[in-house]
Amino acid sequence: MPADNEFPAAPPAAQTQRWVLMLAYNGRGFHGWQKQAGGLITVQQVLEHALEQIAGERIHTVAAGRTDAGVHAVSQVVHFDTTARRPAQAWVKGVNTHLPKEVAVWHAQPADPRFHARFDAFGRRYRYVLLSASVRNPLLAGRVGWVCRPLDMEKMRQAAALLVGEHDFSSFRAAECQAKSPVKTLYAATLSGTPELMKLDLHGNAFLHHMVRNIMGALVYVGDGRLSVQGFADLMEARSRKHAPPTLMPDGLYLTGVDYPPEWGVAAPSAPEWLW
Amino acid sequence: MPADNEFPAAPPAAQTQRWVLMLAYNGRGFHGWQKQAGGLITVQQVLEHALEQIAGERIHTVAAGRTDAGVHAVSQVVHFDTTARRPAQAWVKGVNTHLPKEVAVWHAQPADPRFHARFDAFGRRYRYVLLSASVRNPLLAGRVGWVCRPLDMEKMRQAAALLVGEHDFSSFRAAECQAKSPVKTLYAATLSGTPELMKLDLHGNAFLHHMVRNIMGALVYVGDGRLSVQGFADLMEARSRKHAPPTLMPDGLYLTGVDYPPEWGVAAPSAPEWLW
Repeated sequence: MPADNEFPAAPPAAQTQRWVLMLAYNGRGFHGWQKQAGGLITVQQVLEHALEQIAGERIHTVAAGRTDAGVHAVSQVVHFDTTARRPAQAWVKGVNTHLPKEVAVWHAQPADPRFHARFDAFGRRYRYVLLSASVRNPLLAGRVGWVCRPLDMEKMRQAAALLVGEHDFSSFRAAECQAKSPVKTLYAATLSGTPELMKLDLHGNAFLHHMVRNIMGALVYVGDGRLSVQGFADLMEARSRKHAPPTLMPDGLYLTGVDYPPEWGVAAPSAPEWLW
Repeated sequence: MPADNEFPAAPPAAQTQRWVLMLAYNGRGFHGWQKQAGGLITVQQVLEHALEQIAGERIHTVAAGRTDAGVHAVSQVVHFDTTARRPAQAWVKGVNTHLPKEVAVWHAQPADPRFHARFDAFGRRYRYVLLSASVRNPLLAGRVGWVCRPLDMEKMRQAAALLVGEHDFSSFRAAECQAKSPVKTLYAATLSGTPELMKLDLHGNAFLHHMVRNIMGALVYVGDGRLSVQGFADLMEARSRKHAPPTLMPDGLYLTGVDYPPEWGVAAPSAPEWLW
């Protein structure tokens, strides 16, 4: 990684331009999104390094959502400012030549300098992909969660439906969560696929720390019979992790999209189907 | 890895049993199937090591097909002999606990001691998965071939159809190929999926070294217009690699199945759908 002084900070007077990027990454080899001290490799770190090679100056990025270690993104949204004048393709193909194979920018566009990737997002979409099979899958290793018991998808679907709406999600909140309030709104909670390989799609205004992995952990208990649908409702009502099933592994979790008010004009072209 | 003398060879008089395994692996981190001198990690090496932990004796495996470095398997078939008496689940779940995440046995059954995983196979199936996109895909990195030009799938389909039947496949044969004859029979050559993410399924009695990757390399030339369908036919007719398009990367190649005469009773349960 470049030392802090490898590139000069842009002079304050220089005219800066704000750019928005959509990127995909396989989080398996990274210690999450956010830059860290101590030499741990993060997505933000490799992305900023790659952007700096194209910009020729220090770049600081802001992401819509910070993903944890091992969590993937199909459509992470990031903004940054630069005095460098480059065409959009330089921020896609040029940057990609400086990124490891596990990270790629797939869209870049200039944005209003007041647009903020994190604060302007009013909705976020996550998918959890879960494999239920007696044998683990070496071709999907690191990219799906895995349980070895068979699951009752219909019961899980009934429980997932209870999540929709405005709720206090304290029962699915990690102890270290820094959100101001545990009350969030889920617009949709959809279970698709097959009992062997199922996908939970959650769409909400915001998510607590580990919320999706904790929800999927509880749904697995419903699926394998350790928790009834009523028990799941009681768990939500309890607003406590005291008796909650454990957090599921990060491997199956993907940030799949971020919603912005249309006036910003950064409505992402939806991620290409082949990203799955 | 265990030294050669870590486990005793089975005494010649001991009653041995032959077992057949079906296994899947992600070949990205391996130097192919076959055990090698010089410390390169191969699938055979890690599998035999895992089997030896369960058997408590030296194990030698024979595979239906040797896959190259970076090539995957959904359904590789392997046989081995052992004097150890273990239930089938020990050769599946027990062995899997000693394998890296990128390799898993998903089926084991006892077999006739005369059954041979390589010599009794009369058919082999391979799939090549090809991504055509202007940006590479970090979530499929190492698991698909990638070209950045758009492809005409219909033209590729016409060319692929010419492959079916008995042909001299010298135009798709690697220089280092050790097969006795370049004449092989393809029972089927099917292109499915979308132009963005397509799958070439080849089913044949045997394959020359690099044959699938060389065929896909030539089909890409047909798809992007550098070679006409007639040009592809001429290339096959030429029986030479002199003017043939280059070999495609191993990343997209999967061994998907092996056929045996039904009397052996080792007809593989077809690989679970979720292996894709």
